[in-house]
Amino acid sequence: MTRFRYLTFLTDYGLEDGFVAACHGVAARIAPHAEIIDVTHLVPPGDIRRGAAVLAQAVPYLPPAVHVAVVDPGVGTARRGVAVAAGDSVFVGPDNGLLPWALAAAGGAARAHLLANSDLWLDRVTATFHGRDIFMPVAAHLAADADLAAAGPEIGAGELVALPAPERRVRGRLARGEVLTVDRFGNVQLTLSAADAAAIGVRDGGAVLVRCRRRALTLPYREMFGAVPPGELVVYADSAGLVSIAVNGGSAARRLGLAPGDRVSITAAHRD
Amino acid sequence: MTRFRYLTFLTDYGLEDGFVAACHGVAARIAPHAEIIDVTHLVPPGDIRRGAAVLAQAVPYLPPAVHVAVVDPGVGTARRGVAVAAGDSVFVGPDNGLLPWALAAAGGAARAHLLANSDLWLDRVTATFHGRDIFMPVAAHLAADADLAAAGPEIGAGELVALPAPERRVRGRLARGEVLTVDRFGNVQLTLSAADAAAIGVRDGGAVLVRCRRRALTLPYREMFGAVPPGELVVYADSAGLVSIAVNGGSAARRLGLAPGDRVSITAAHRD
Amino acid sequence: MTRFRYLTFLTDYGLEDGFVAACHGVAARIAPHAEIIDVTHLVPPGDIRRGAAVLAQAVPYLPPAVHVAVVDPGVGTARRGVAVAAGDSVFVGPDNGLLPWALAAAGGAARAHLLANSDLWLDRVTATFHGRDIFMPVAAHLAADADLAAAGPEIGAGELVALPAPERRVRGRLARGEVLTVDRFGNVQLTLSAADAAAIGVRDGGAVLVRCRRRALTLPYREMFGAVPPGELVVYADSAGLVSIAVNGGSAARRLGLAPGDRVSITAAHRD
Repeated sequence: MTRFRYLTFLTDYGLEDGFVAACHGVAARIAPHAEIIDVTHLVPPGDIRRGAAVLAQAVPYLPPAVHVAVVDPGVGTARRGVAVAAGDSVFVGPDNGLLPWALAAAGGAARAHLLANSDLWLDRVTATFHGRDIFMPVAAHLAADADLAAAGPEIGAGELVALPAPERRVRGRLARGEVLTVDRFGNVQLTLSAADAAAIGVRDGGAVLVRCRRRALTLPYREMFGAVPPGELVVYADSAGLVSIAVNGGSAARRLGLAPGDRVSITAAHRD
Repeated sequence: MTRFRYLTFLTDYGLEDGFVAACHGVAARIAPHAEIIDVTHLVPPGDIRRGAAVLAQAVPYLPPAVHVAVVDPGVGTARRGVAVAAGDSVFVGPDNGLLPWALAAAGGAARAHLLANSDLWLDRVTATFHGRDIFMPVAAHLAADADLAAAGPEIGAGELVALPAPERRVRGRLARGEVLTVDRFGNVQLTLSAADAAAIGVRDGGAVLVRCRRRALTLPYREMFGAVPPGELVVYADSAGLVSIAVNGGSAARRLGLAPGDRVSITAAHRD
Repeated sequence: MTRFRYLTFLTDYGLEDGFVAACHGVAARIAPHAEIIDVTHLVPPGDIRRGAAVLAQAVPYLPPAVHVAVVDPGVGTARRGVAVAAGDSVFVGPDNGLLPWALAAAGGAARAHLLANSDLWLDRVTATFHGRDIFMPVAAHLAADADLAAAGPEIGAGELVALPAPERRVRGRLARGEVLTVDRFGNVQLTLSAADAAAIGVRDGGAVLVRCRRRALTLPYREMFGAVPPGELVVYADSAGLVSIAVNGGSAARRLGLAPGDRVSITAAHRD
């Protein structure tokens, strides 16, 4: 029984070495029917939080798949490998916080299994490349015909390692959050949602007082960055539904000196 | 009726976020039969001219396809989206000058339609990610079974927004052009063709006087950069048929301080 | 007769131009049945040795394929193009030292042919883009239905151009090698194998005296970098079976100032 037509693949392996290709090769040998959608391989080395955010925001647009995610600074140590069913997909990767945000985006973890059955691994497993030797082979077997239970014993989905919850508090007219991601364009995505902004009275066409790095800026809140003149700052709800700060045609991250984890608060404002 | 087996995809989305993958996922859900050839996703952010040049030079070697191109600094503003038939392919993207050079390379625009039929879009369209929400879904529907007319009302192909024509003048023994692209190797590609060079009397094995940035250099005109010793400058007709300047084993762009848009003139010369 | 389902593709073309896509397009037109696994396109421009190392280490994990590799600073000059059978695969590329390490990894060159039959090339061959005009079209024809002999006349496999053998000497308790590659994480891979380390008495859990750049460092030899505290140096056998130096969570290459080609010797040591 073929279970999944698609594998997706997210890592911090980069594209300059042959690491990603070796994993693609392993998948082609075990599950030649499967097509691979590369989510990204440019997660900064070891940046679990960044990998988690990118995967969670891509998942709603990906087809049913075995999603393989490997940002794994603890490879070879005691951290566990897991395969977790969520929604119409399965997620395979290290149990280090990388998966839960994506699991939630997919509808919540329904069933979790440890990767313990070495029959699904490559014959020779190295200590430092579990993406090639364990995660991808298990995922390919699951995509081809294996049941989740073949991966290893079931554990409680609630036992999965979780990342510290990012700052996100809405109280009265004030929403406190932090920078979740900075994208290629320098757009600064906060942990606050468009609904959070609405809840504190921020309105499209209005203004928002942004506090970050000991500065306070009153910025327009618009539907898109194109609504302000080139070079100007704007706050908007981005394509993931999160409050973001942009410079039209420029980099808000550079302009404001913001990076993931930096605290940012917003409140409704009236321009003078 | 399946109309196209291939989608191609060019953007300035970069590879570090999950933007490209989300678009691939959208295509997989709508047109699971289609294969995607990624042209590049490393167009500098918002650089329409660069995207146009890369796409136009790749198109002659791509199979019949729905070509999706998104370099779209005006996303969400009044700029229109279009689907245009040219040669044996269809091009989908913003109407901002990105497509016409590729349309010409494909044989010329035969029929153009606005993207106005939201039945072909994702259910929820955001203001800042039309690649995922509009362009790719429309392209996937066109690849699967939709007729171009399903995208929206027809417009005149001559109404499409065009980029300013790059400098390219041949008069007597002098050809004036500008830098069209600089590639990964630092090769400097001009807007002048090999035919332009021949028309002003430049011959393989001869020499050419290059004027740029207030300098004048007499350089060999050869069939390839490998024809001069390592580290030396050479002028040649590149793999797109355009006059280019290279350093054998080095970067001509860095050596000469040239970037896209810089003016360069050439004339036949005799080395002393 | 379809001979190969997979093409693999390694170049120094980069991802910012449309060069790789043009080659993908050429393959799609000639061998539409074939799937392409991109090994990497980020080999530093003209770095044959790096391309050779990446390809050789990926090959054991790739499916039977026509492997196309193009790092070709001598394109258009007298250097020859070859197609070489090895193991269950065929390798196509310039005869400049790029292929032999991969051929060895695949089981050794069994038969080599020059690329001389222009019937398998594109109709128009440029002097500077043989990846698109010669190597990929030949590979696609070989993947589709052509016999190796169709490429051109057979030559002795021993005639292939070889790279200078990298330093690797084991004598008594001392192993002298050099840096073979530095990966994305800054891990420094030596030309010495885990077996070399064992032969000179280096043991898992023990220590190793590393000499490089006029420094001598006594470092732990462990199964993986995760076995030492974050920020500390460690020597281990990497996922290719080669002795490597890492910083757990950091870059050993930066810490030690090491780059490919630098000499490194190791000997067993006892920490005080």
